[in-house]
Amino acid sequence: MPATIEWAGGIGGHVRMIDQTKLPTELEIIDCKTIEEIWDAIKQLKVRGAPAIGIAAGMGVVVGIKDSAAQDFESFEKEVHRASDYLATSRPTAVNLFWALERMKRVAAASSELQIPEIKERLLKEAIDILEEDKRLCRRIGEAGAALLADGQGVLTHCNAGGLATGEYGTALAVIFMAHEQGKKLKVYADETRPLLQGARLTSWELMQAGVDCTLICDSAAAEVMKEGRVQAVVVGADRIAANGDVANKIGTYMLSILAKEHDIPFYVAAPHSTFDLNIASGDDIPIEERPSEEITEGFGRRTAPEGVKTYSPAFDVTPAKYIKAIITDRGVLYPPYEEKIRRVIGAAQE
Amino acid sequence: MPATIEWAGGIGGHVRMIDQTKLPTELEIIDCKTIEEIWDAIKQLKVRGAPAIGIAAGMGVVVGIKDSAAQDFESFEKEVHRASDYLATSRPTAVNLFWALERMKRVAAASSELQIPEIKERLLKEAIDILEEDKRLCRRIGEAGAALLADGQGVLTHCNAGGLATGEYGTALAVIFMAHEQGKKLKVYADETRPLLQGARLTSWELMQAGVDCTLICDSAAAEVMKEGRVQAVVVGADRIAANGDVANKIGTYMLSILAKEHDIPFYVAAPHSTFDLNIASGDDIPIEERPSEEITEGFGRRTAPEGVKTYSPAFDVTPAKYIKAIITDRGVLYPPYEEKIRRVIGAAQE
Repeated sequence: MPATIEWAGGIGGHVRMIDQTKLPTELEIIDCKTIEEIWDAIKQLKVRGAPAIGIAAGMGVVVGIKDSAAQDFESFEKEVHRASDYLATSRPTAVNLFWALERMKRVAAASSELQIPEIKERLLKEAIDILEEDKRLCRRIGEAGAALLADGQGVLTHCNAGGLATGEYGTALAVIFMAHEQGKKLKVYADETRPLLQGARLTSWELMQAGVDCTLICDSAAAEVMKEGRVQAVVVGADRIAANGDVANKIGTYMLSILAKEHDIPFYVAAPHSTFDLNIASGDDIPIEERPSEEITEGFGRRTAPEGVKTYSPAFDVTPAKYIKAIITDRGVLYPPYEEKIRRVIGAAQE
Repeated sequence: MPATIEWAGGIGGHVRMIDQTKLPTELEIIDCKTIEEIWDAIKQLKVRGAPAIGIAAGMGVVVGIKDSAAQDFESFEKEVHRASDYLATSRPTAVNLFWALERMKRVAAASSELQIPEIKERLLKEAIDILEEDKRLCRRIGEAGAALLADGQGVLTHCNAGGLATGEYGTALAVIFMAHEQGKKLKVYADETRPLLQGARLTSWELMQAGVDCTLICDSAAAEVMKEGRVQAVVVGADRIAANGDVANKIGTYMLSILAKEHDIPFYVAAPHSTFDLNIASGDDIPIEERPSEEITEGFGRRTAPEGVKTYSPAFDVTPAKYIKAIITDRGVLYPPYEEKIRRVIGAAQE
């Protein structure tokens, strides 16, 4: 599998990524040479998944300022902020987006002593660091979580929290990939994940590429799959985790958490420490993006609902911490009660 | 709205129905002049919904025997059985299919004294009776259930249990239509209902035609819609109800029943007495049809999952009686515990 996202070239370079809207029928690599192309790639979900969005945002800032003609630090820093503010409008829910942009702004702010070309290099290095760190984090998440899955188990996952959602390897799928590498035979059920079918298009594709046994189901079949005893664990990713352990993730995640509880199946969330937002006390404060009507009414290139029908399409939902058996992070597995542990373990990691 | 299904002409006539696979973009009326066309229409879901399937099956028997050249009762009855056995193979879960076929066989069996042309007329009358009775039953279901909904409430429904699923008016939607006619302003949320999108294609179309406020959502958004306090009741139809009150209905129904319980929202099932199968003790004994892989992987004329991916696509699931607040029937509203009431009220109606 080619890189989900990477920087091509030196400071004069650009962002290269898999256009995930074309999968699984086409594996198309696109080059984003302007900040508008990066903004559009994030907005259109060509790159998606909280960590990958963070990486794209970091690199997007570099694309936005690499040709800057600013002569003094103050004007240059303004351009960094302008690029950052612009990219922040692409998708409002993913905390990694803001986290990466903050990181880029901090690096700029700390570089007032340097020459502009040097600051540009430092920003590029920072963006590439975000990618490389993410790869390491994903591997650690996989290592921490694999122990929770046993040989022969069925595992349900939702949306795509795989290598395509991160620098490499994934979060929820890292747990599965790592257990698979350890020789555990898993039977993975992937929710197709309406409206945009990330499970059908991306997760099943990634799992099949890795040789993991994968069965695709409609989102509405998850309860039946649980009832029939086909899965012994649910593992999902996260777009944002509040200080109390509430988790914002793809619409349908909250549903799964309730169904898992009712069937007495452990429900795990896997995410790097950068997905935690300790400024947000609980899930009630997480803004939920609404997706366009057409994704429901003509999402497959063919109109499947009456003209003019109203829709409601929240992109995410919030799973209260009480439904979550454990949160698998690059700093180990956190068990409830979450609040104090998140503050201690994640707070330290974010400093 | 034209008739969902009707008999066109006299004994030499045929079945005319809306091809529901073409909705909502085309309103196409098809004429089924052979039993194979009826079988195919049921199998392909051109006609769907338990009551409508029963009506189609009854009329299908007539189509199958109307040109019979049988000279004696015994050979004629064999043809009735052959037609019936053939139609019984079209969809294994819908009890109304078997119920209607049994009715047709009983009429034939009771007609041994008559001339063949007279028996044909009696069979046609029986098939039309099934349709007319269904219309009356639906209206009674609506009357019984409307009292459960209050002005200003939000109501969630799944799949299509409307006029398109019955002779007219529907089961779950009859409750909504009747409350609407009584002047109650409802806000209906319709699950799109993957894989075949009956909610998007049919339910929202029917509701909009009737002027009922309707919002289409992805199946996976139902939990979020409940959490946000947008709905105060869930009303669904049924394909088969066991003697203990367990309900087989479109995949996703079981999920909704659990979500409704978790959000303390009443979960109602609406069905005519013919949907009850008192020979089946519990939902465990209801056979669940599996749908073809392509409905998930390329359901809209475009491939959306990798070639060769495995799928699991149960057409139905079983909602245990314990999750059901009440069953709304043409004989009134049944409350738990169901077993004795079903035996008394429904058993008597079926005799």
